[in-house]
Amino acid sequence: MIEQKFKPKTRSFLAEAQAFSAGQSTPRHFLEYSLEIASDIEADLHAFVFLDADGARRQADASSKRWREGRQLSPVDGLPVGIKDVIETIDMPTGMGSPLFTDWRSDRDAACVYALREAGAVIVGKTVTTEFAATEPGPTRNPWDLERTPGGSSSGSAAAVGAGILSAALGTQVIGSVIRPAGYCGCVGFKPTIGALNRGGSHDYMSQSCLGVIGASLEDTWQVAHEIVQRCGGDPGAPALDGPDRLPSPLQPASLALIETAGWADASEEAKSRLEQLLERLTGAGVRIRRRTSLSLLDEVEQAIIGSLRLSQIINAWESRWPLNTYAQRDKEKLSQAMQRRLTEAEAMTLTDYKAALEKRALIRILYSRLATDCEACITLSAPGVAPRGIASTGNPVFAVPASMLGVPALSLPLLEEQGMPLGVQLIGFAGQEAKLMSIAAWLRDLN
Amino acid sequence: MIEQKFKPKTRSFLAEAQAFSAGQSTPRHFLEYSLEIASDIEADLHAFVFLDADGARRQADASSKRWREGRQLSPVDGLPVGIKDVIETIDMPTGMGSPLFTDWRSDRDAACVYALREAGAVIVGKTVTTEFAATEPGPTRNPWDLERTPGGSSSGSAAAVGAGILSAALGTQVIGSVIRPAGYCGCVGFKPTIGALNRGGSHDYMSQSCLGVIGASLEDTWQVAHEIVQRCGGDPGAPALDGPDRLPSPLQPASLALIETAGWADASEEAKSRLEQLLERLTGAGVRIRRRTSLSLLDEVEQAIIGSLRLSQIINAWESRWPLNTYAQRDKEKLSQAMQRRLTEAEAMTLTDYKAALEKRALIRILYSRLATDCEACITLSAPGVAPRGIASTGNPVFAVPASMLGVPALSLPLLEEQGMPLGVQLIGFAGQEAKLMSIAAWLRDLN
Repeated sequence: MIEQKFKPKTRSFLAEAQAFSAGQSTPRHFLEYSLEIASDIEADLHAFVFLDADGARRQADASSKRWREGRQLSPVDGLPVGIKDVIETIDMPTGMGSPLFTDWRSDRDAACVYALREAGAVIVGKTVTTEFAATEPGPTRNPWDLERTPGGSSSGSAAAVGAGILSAALGTQVIGSVIRPAGYCGCVGFKPTIGALNRGGSHDYMSQSCLGVIGASLEDTWQVAHEIVQRCGGDPGAPALDGPDRLPSPLQPASLALIETAGWADASEEAKSRLEQLLERLTGAGVRIRRRTSLSLLDEVEQAIIGSLRLSQIINAWESRWPLNTYAQRDKEKLSQAMQRRLTEAEAMTLTDYKAALEKRALIRILYSRLATDCEACITLSAPGVAPRGIASTGNPVFAVPASMLGVPALSLPLLEEQGMPLGVQLIGFAGQEAKLMSIAAWLRDLN
Repeated sequence: MIEQKFKPKTRSFLAEAQAFSAGQSTPRHFLEYSLEIASDIEADLHAFVFLDADGARRQADASSKRWREGRQLSPVDGLPVGIKDVIETIDMPTGMGSPLFTDWRSDRDAACVYALREAGAVIVGKTVTTEFAATEPGPTRNPWDLERTPGGSSSGSAAAVGAGILSAALGTQVIGSVIRPAGYCGCVGFKPTIGALNRGGSHDYMSQSCLGVIGASLEDTWQVAHEIVQRCGGDPGAPALDGPDRLPSPLQPASLALIETAGWADASEEAKSRLEQLLERLTGAGVRIRRRTSLSLLDEVEQAIIGSLRLSQIINAWESRWPLNTYAQRDKEKLSQAMQRRLTEAEAMTLTDYKAALEKRALIRILYSRLATDCEACITLSAPGVAPRGIASTGNPVFAVPASMLGVPALSLPLLEEQGMPLGVQLIGFAGQEAKLMSIAAWLRDLN
């Protein structure tokens, strides 16, 4: 049993930025506290596979100079950021959470990493990922309780932001890899619409894969995503993340739809009851909460998304037939049993099977999009409860997978608690409407 | 001046396959003649950056054994194929036509390469590409006249198929990189709908980029594309190439639209006159040829596509901001002047500029799709004339770029000649209708 000496607290960089302009603090000063936390707990936390403290100090010094001279490159100039280890970096290895990629270097930055450098962000290190951003867990622990999982696959990103080491970290989600760990670690988690942030140079090539941001606050999260998209856009040809230069203003929604998902049956009574209490407060504030019992379209959507996890697994299997087949060609023993099973499933599939799954997904997406006439967003949990004990599994993705399958934006907000652990509330929006989702989230946070 | 001792002739593998079944020939025998041609002319032709004769012989022997035992893996089992050197191979370097990637090995096969291996094809080697499949030419020469360019960027693929060394080779097209070299070298060139063939593991990530096949015959071309797609699909989430297990049957079209494109002004009088003679024969056979002078929608389309090249350059510039920026970060001097200019253009652009270009493209695509009510396909030249003299430029892509910008399938057919050089005829279809385009092409070939 590891002793929990540490009470985590996220650290918003943007909340401190006024002090940089006023000369009362510097990004270097901000970073030093990050490194202090890291030196206290990283040996137990294992959020990083690579942490370049000296490099980060040099970047932070350059940033401090820019702020002093009023030449900062963007609002995130100096923000300490971590890069999920499936995303390429020119100056650090990219290990993919796989022994096939130990010490592998691509000698280039991914699009999002290069964009962050252009914006002046301080690249602190590479954060632990499960194997190829899938299920095989890494060594990372939850900063709120070291006996618990941080969630996955963006395990290290969520743990480091939750612990206050980083103000933001990049994650990727194809099933539930941003929303779930953000919820477990008390961070904001943001998975935009599919394609909204450029995936170039990142090992997430599936049709549901999405680059996302885990942040200390809504402001930090939005700003990091915004600065990335301004510099490298979305995926080639796809509509890029759209929205204002700063976090969209709070907006009270007229109505939100409670979605239960297949997770309702698995969710703890405490978690459901905390969510219901929040919904009561929303109702009190004048928000109409739509429920499946009184809105037949919502009930139809619930029935359609109940198989989201299995449908996603089928689609992901075919879509990872390659490169898993060529990795097996190299050294099958270096793939986990879970990955070998996925490959076996993929190799038993035909193109026709895959097309049928895509068609099914397309129809569910259309059905869901019709909900936009009844509510401004959906609300639910980020996970069935707080982070489970143990690190042999990264937890149940059942609440996060519908937004992945639907390809729509989702946010995990650290609004609730249970057993002294954070419990994430999830907002799910409609394709391309990230700014609106952020506005609703800002209002919800301020209400809390 | 290099002496032209060689009269090239494409060699269809599928035309010989009956002999394999009958035990009258073997893939090894077929390959030996390939290697003989290569040893005669490759020193002048420079189609390959890497040619693995011993490895090819081993693969061909295994294939010969399978045919003998009636266990061939697919109709292309034993087909000698070349891989454009922007596409990754587990057993050969992938040089990208760039000094930044000299001797670079990815230690994996691209999706299409792995699929070809599963189908039993013999991977003979890597074929010369221009720098990053763009404009900076390689050393390859045209097999029909060594003083002329083979076209680009799939230079080596077209030259090797045109010379009869390979029955098919993979190419990529974002502007005119499959259609133009196929036309110049007397091959069939096939660029399907955007996304129809999986691009995983290939350095063509732009929204107009497309994996294509250059082949000795329509049969070889279709079969190679079909065997790839059955095993790795299209791009994740995109509609994959659809069609029958063998080349679609010939189909006489009721009407074809002649499109002039911005290239009409640049085209040689001889080339235009050869095309007009072909159109007369088509008319004689009962095909109605639509022209812009009598079909106002066609005239609208012509006006809309006249700026295809510039619009494509703008879109490609933004979309290659990354990775060119990180390549420059590594060593700017190793980028050609043309690539440095593209990066400079990209860095002067904003996301808003890019979105405007995408919107313009989307509108032109809608306009073009309406033509499907007036014709079954469009017909034009593959290039303004035969391959120009010299190898300092890969020629004018003006006729090929509209199909790239439109994202629709295109075929170059070696139906005409001029000055003893092949002159390609281009068919351009509608999104997702590759099988129909192949049927029309088969009919056209048989008419010829």
